Amino acid sequence: MKAARFHAQEDLRIEDIEEPVPGPGEVKIRNAYSGICGSDLHFYYAPEASGVNINEPHPITGAKPPQVLGHEFSGTVVELGDGVDGVEVGDRVVVWPIYYCGSCAACGKGMYNICRTIAFHGLSSNGGGMAEFTTIPASKVHVLPEGVDLRMGALVEPMAVAWHAVEASGIQAGQTAMIIGAGPIGIGVWFALRAHGVETVIVSEPSDERRAAIEGVGADLVVNPMAQDLAARVQEETGGRGVDVAFDAAGIGPALSGALTQLAPGGRAIVVAIHERPTEIQPTQFVMGETGISGTLAYLPEDFDAVIQAMADGKYTSEGWVSEVSLDGVVDAFHALRSGRRMKVLVRAD
Amino acid sequence: MKAARFHAQEDLRIEDIEEPVPGPGEVKIRNAYSGICGSDLHFYYAPEASGVNINEPHPITGAKPPQVLGHEFSGTVVELGDGVDGVEVGDRVVVWPIYYCGSCAACGKGMYNICRTIAFHGLSSNGGGMAEFTTIPASKVHVLPEGVDLRMGALVEPMAVAWHAVEASGIQAGQTAMIIGAGPIGIGVWFALRAHGVETVIVSEPSDERRAAIEGVGADLVVNPMAQDLAARVQEETGGRGVDVAFDAAGIGPALSGALTQLAPGGRAIVVAIHERPTEIQPTQFVMGETGISGTLAYLPEDFDAVIQAMADGKYTSEGWVSEVSLDGVVDAFHALRSGRRMKVLVRAD
Repeated sequence: MKAARFHAQEDLRIEDIEEPVPGPGEVKIRNAYSGICGSDLHFYYAPEASGVNINEPHPITGAKPPQVLGHEFSGTVVELGDGVDGVEVGDRVVVWPIYYCGSCAACGKGMYNICRTIAFHGLSSNGGGMAEFTTIPASKVHVLPEGVDLRMGALVEPMAVAWHAVEASGIQAGQTAMIIGAGPIGIGVWFALRAHGVETVIVSEPSDERRAAIEGVGADLVVNPMAQDLAARVQEETGGRGVDVAFDAAGIGPALSGALTQLAPGGRAIVVAIHERPTEIQPTQFVMGETGISGTLAYLPEDFDAVIQAMADGKYTSEGWVSEVSLDGVVDAFHALRSGRRMKVLVRAD
Repeated sequence: MKAARFHAQEDLRIEDIEEPVPGPGEVKIRNAYSGICGSDLHFYYAPEASGVNINEPHPITGAKPPQVLGHEFSGTVVELGDGVDGVEVGDRVVVWPIYYCGSCAACGKGMYNICRTIAFHGLSSNGGGMAEFTTIPASKVHVLPEGVDLRMGALVEPMAVAWHAVEASGIQAGQTAMIIGAGPIGIGVWFALRAHGVETVIVSEPSDERRAAIEGVGADLVVNPMAQDLAARVQEETGGRGVDVAFDAAGIGPALSGALTQLAPGGRAIVVAIHERPTEIQPTQFVMGETGISGTLAYLPEDFDAVIQAMADGKYTSEGWVSEVSLDGVVDAFHALRSGRRMKVLVRAD
């Protein structure tokens, strides 16, 4: 079968490899769409800095490169391994792609999404979504309901990252929010906030393309922080109170610091982006406003369930911010994404 | 009557001033003990930097210096103004000393402790605890039960600062904690944690005197971070998991940064100290461990009620860390506190 395999830094090959066979408890999936994620870019351009050790077999999965990429993907079940229950051949599915150790401090609290030796299907495993087929434990499969197509299904993973962040923030309907950065995660936060009943959502994004993309899905309070006074806009839209939650989906220190000054009393900043550099903060500001900052990573299976339900309820659209390429176009798409010329790209696995 | 009045920077005078008369809804209190707080030191040595504008009448109270000091104090009600209900002459009381505007974004959320124009009795008002008498709205008075004496009563305020921080942390019985800094607030956090059923509490404090003080009230996991490996001790005492909550009662950037690396998955750092300088953090660490940092300030009336109840239940002692001076000794006590030679000093108001 055809597959996009990572061999080494900036060495991704479209190859013909053997079709996988589902083991006991596994299902075989004919992949449909697989999104390219920021993590894929990190991995491709700087594998040593991405947190994945490509020189040793992963302690949980035993995998090492060459590695089929694609951890945010959808497909159709075509074969069941022995003892699989609750999934049928023909089911359209998405995959919760996390492998966890089950024994670290995080797993002990049920926080499998931050397992200290976490692995992802499509980054450190026996396969991924950027191939014609993959096999995966049936327990990781979420069946898509009627009304959620396979293209939308491939967006469940990035949308679950954002949903998890919104859930962690504790934000309530009627409160106010700010989103820093309108990339795919920022857009996902916007959808999740609307699904949570949050109406006042101020978006800060310097890129013309990204502002247009989030306006295209319905955002109406979108600011270019390089050209407009973001703080004044926040004050105006919140009646001088500040925002209850600011989501950092950009990973830029000064933008985060600025957001901290725009929090309402008791407000929170949620970091859902990787920062390359440290940033300076004044802890006294947390004291004076009883504000705070915290981070979220990835998602739990229940975030997948919630996003799939919200998609079935019509809360998401892929219009205007999602494009497609074939497997052969993956490397070009990586380059386009890195240079900021694309938002979310789905790779067709056929 | 005799009173300690602040006139200007490093100008505190023991003077004879007029005895106050309770207005409608007010009570007159014969003050017993009044603690000297870090805020008093800031105000005395650097009023411009303390957040109190001493040149204009306070927008809520109308007060400006000369100002009777003392906002953490106890006393006995000796006279009732017109229309006072629920307080009797002879009641032994402590005072929730906050005046709030009632209309700012914080007050709108019931967060009167962070009112944007907050004033404190004894810092920006018509009186304070470091005088023979004061008058105060009866609504701010909390009656001490039998078993909580006036000396202990003067500790309710600083202990409520710490109690509020522990409540805000959401820590549960059986979880683990670290306290950075064993000054009066750090000791208060220790008492509050024990009252909340938290047994594993690691205390980090470089001062010999302060380590001895917190050991004197019962702390058994006390580390000198200058001489011992704090991180190793945390790992040892928490079975390698890290602490669920770290309380910053020191206001030292590197100590806070260090504590952030010692948090368990999902752990929180609570800042309950003023930092003079900004500090550098790497937001990605919040993401990877789903940890966070937030701040708390002062207290609400219910924190006073909870501390008074815990005192009545025998959860607090003033042994070994509280000393007394007379009104005439206030200025000397300020100098001793600033140089770190004292922990908590109570001023006898008679």
